[in-house]
Amino acid sequence: MAKDVFEEAVEKKRELGGFLTMGTKYPLKDGHDLSVAYTPGVAEPCLRIKKNPEESFELTCRSNMVAVISDGTRVLGLGDIGAVAALPVMEGKSLLFKRFGNVDCIPLVLDTKDPEEFIHTVKLVQKNFAGINLEDISSPKCYEIEKRLKEELEIPVFHDDQHGTAIACLAGVKAALRFVKKDLAKVKIVINGSGAAGANMARLLYLAGARDITLMVSSGVLNKNYKRLDSLQAELIKLFGQEDKTGTLAEVAKGADVLLGVSAANAFTPDIIKGLAKDSIVFAMANPVPEIMYDDAKALGVRVMGTGRSDAPNQINNVNVFPGIFRGAIDVHATQINDEMKLAAADALSNLISDEDLREDYVVADAFDERVPVAVAKAVAETAIKTGVARKKTLD
Amino acid sequence: MAKDVFEEAVEKKRELGGFLTMGTKYPLKDGHDLSVAYTPGVAEPCLRIKKNPEESFELTCRSNMVAVISDGTRVLGLGDIGAVAALPVMEGKSLLFKRFGNVDCIPLVLDTKDPEEFIHTVKLVQKNFAGINLEDISSPKCYEIEKRLKEELEIPVFHDDQHGTAIACLAGVKAALRFVKKDLAKVKIVINGSGAAGANMARLLYLAGARDITLMVSSGVLNKNYKRLDSLQAELIKLFGQEDKTGTLAEVAKGADVLLGVSAANAFTPDIIKGLAKDSIVFAMANPVPEIMYDDAKALGVRVMGTGRSDAPNQINNVNVFPGIFRGAIDVHATQINDEMKLAAADALSNLISDEDLREDYVVADAFDERVPVAVAKAVAETAIKTGVARKKTLD
Repeated sequence: MAKDVFEEAVEKKRELGGFLTMGTKYPLKDGHDLSVAYTPGVAEPCLRIKKNPEESFELTCRSNMVAVISDGTRVLGLGDIGAVAALPVMEGKSLLFKRFGNVDCIPLVLDTKDPEEFIHTVKLVQKNFAGINLEDISSPKCYEIEKRLKEELEIPVFHDDQHGTAIACLAGVKAALRFVKKDLAKVKIVINGSGAAGANMARLLYLAGARDITLMVSSGVLNKNYKRLDSLQAELIKLFGQEDKTGTLAEVAKGADVLLGVSAANAFTPDIIKGLAKDSIVFAMANPVPEIMYDDAKALGVRVMGTGRSDAPNQINNVNVFPGIFRGAIDVHATQINDEMKLAAADALSNLISDEDLREDYVVADAFDERVPVAVAKAVAETAIKTGVARKKTLD
Repeated sequence: MAKDVFEEAVEKKRELGGFLTMGTKYPLKDGHDLSVAYTPGVAEPCLRIKKNPEESFELTCRSNMVAVISDGTRVLGLGDIGAVAALPVMEGKSLLFKRFGNVDCIPLVLDTKDPEEFIHTVKLVQKNFAGINLEDISSPKCYEIEKRLKEELEIPVFHDDQHGTAIACLAGVKAALRFVKKDLAKVKIVINGSGAAGANMARLLYLAGARDITLMVSSGVLNKNYKRLDSLQAELIKLFGQEDKTGTLAEVAKGADVLLGVSAANAFTPDIIKGLAKDSIVFAMANPVPEIMYDDAKALGVRVMGTGRSDAPNQINNVNVFPGIFRGAIDVHATQINDEMKLAAADALSNLISDEDLREDYVVADAFDERVPVAVAKAVAETAIKTGVARKKTLD
């Protein structure tokens, strides 16, 4: 099966020459059209923008154009494959942006592995875009890159690998907790995997009100002795009081209400699962093979189970997140995507499924549910206005 | 009239949010489509390209994607208006690329005026594109930028302001000379204006076989005493034997067969025009007001008259050139656009009008003549193969 999808991807892309094409919103039927779209007419929009650069968000394709930017240093599960080999992923992502968020999106791989050069290049191209989606950049440099760009750019910057899955996961956890009638502030949460996705999941869960969170790495509890402890991890283990904590996953997960995996295939053994609390929630998000398969987890008594796969219920999928995030941010000309907007996106996503509709195999909305991007965008736009990061002060 | 076109440009762009939008060639109807366009299927095109980077020209939107890149230092007649204010022009140009050449095209303004930084940035983004069209960069730095990028990039680079008008002009001159039955190798040619457009016109006319060419600046003959003599000008005045030559335009143009203007409104006075040879050819290409108006020149006895305007016959228009140039170069995966390809483009354009069809008011094909980009593309592609700069060895 999987083999077919891979071959089909190559064949379709070869047949069509990739999946993106530039479309035009203005016809060029005659000389008059030429004089409006190009010379001499185009001089006037230029002069308006020279006078007031903000007008570029109204008078050009920048109004709805986002760049999906990567250096190709951590692509899917393939690792550091370089800029040009990462292009198909950026193109696919752009396709998703358009399909689910109606956001115009251009893939842009940068042929450098140097963070300073990457940052500088993004600054030089920013004026073409209404927002920047960072993608597939290795950690820990992705933290520095995103932080610096957020400080130094005039448009929103969002590293989807850090925040997209974290928001989708928080939404699923909140819906699942409503279903099992437990309180986020009181549940015990264990996160296996402390890379960019895991650490940001932990951070966002904390911001949402969770207080009993433990981050794990493959050797056990993430603590101050971890060899390659990065800045975000250092901050979080302090916040979670696990600087000196030790223990294996089996030991730490004993009695946990929520077990999240962004680690490796089959990392959740039956023993670990059997040690969880009653009405446990497990999201096993390793790709393509999860930490435990859906049916196996259910057979071992997990109440609400989710994975990253489309062939099982409750797919934790960032495609539910990034199109609506950018749609909402762009609609109000937001200058950034702040934590409040991320939390609002998670709440909007979670609340799409009412208490009455919740089932153990339905705590996550389907990626093709048309309400998803609309609800996320609305929440994000309203929160941008509320928190003072929107240039527009009302939603049209 | 003109006022209306300016206002219409602003209104239409505001209404539509610019004129470009990203289109998709692959539908995303269901989970299967997602798994082909994105994970997990997309991994396979990535691996193919990692193994053989050339595959990026087949398996991604790079296959047909060109960037229109500018630093906004010399935009239309507006001068140095900066990167973001130049965006409407790059967007308009992208629209023309699509409409006339079916080339997918993204505007990309770079927020730097430093040539080294510009060159470096283009190198970092080149792997997204099949070609680079440079636009609205001030001279003389545009020469160094184009030269370096041609040497250092793996894809074609073409500065349209230098070569587009030069090719369109050469095509018009050749057709006009056929009409008046004069020989390019023998006619006396005077070019008023020695900036990027004028100097490259002179250079291309020389490469096409013209030998009696004089380049003028506003103070008279361009000679070795010219204060801001740039490298291309220095090379040309040596080639044309005008290093020590002096004289006003009226003096030098006396007896000229071909007078070309890329200078300023009303620069061709009646005295100058009256001094030209019998069956004279005048292309007055200053924008928006030419060196002499079409009807005035005709009344003074000019045999074949052309301007840059769409409201008069014989519009010398680079829109007849750049879409076909890139269409042809991309079709055969050319690594550069060399002089032979430029000359072939001019010949193809000129020869579109047969000897029987030539009239004094029809030496230039109409911009909306559908044969134009097809003929130019074919000639360019064939010449790329012939001169060994095409990765593909046959035209499909």
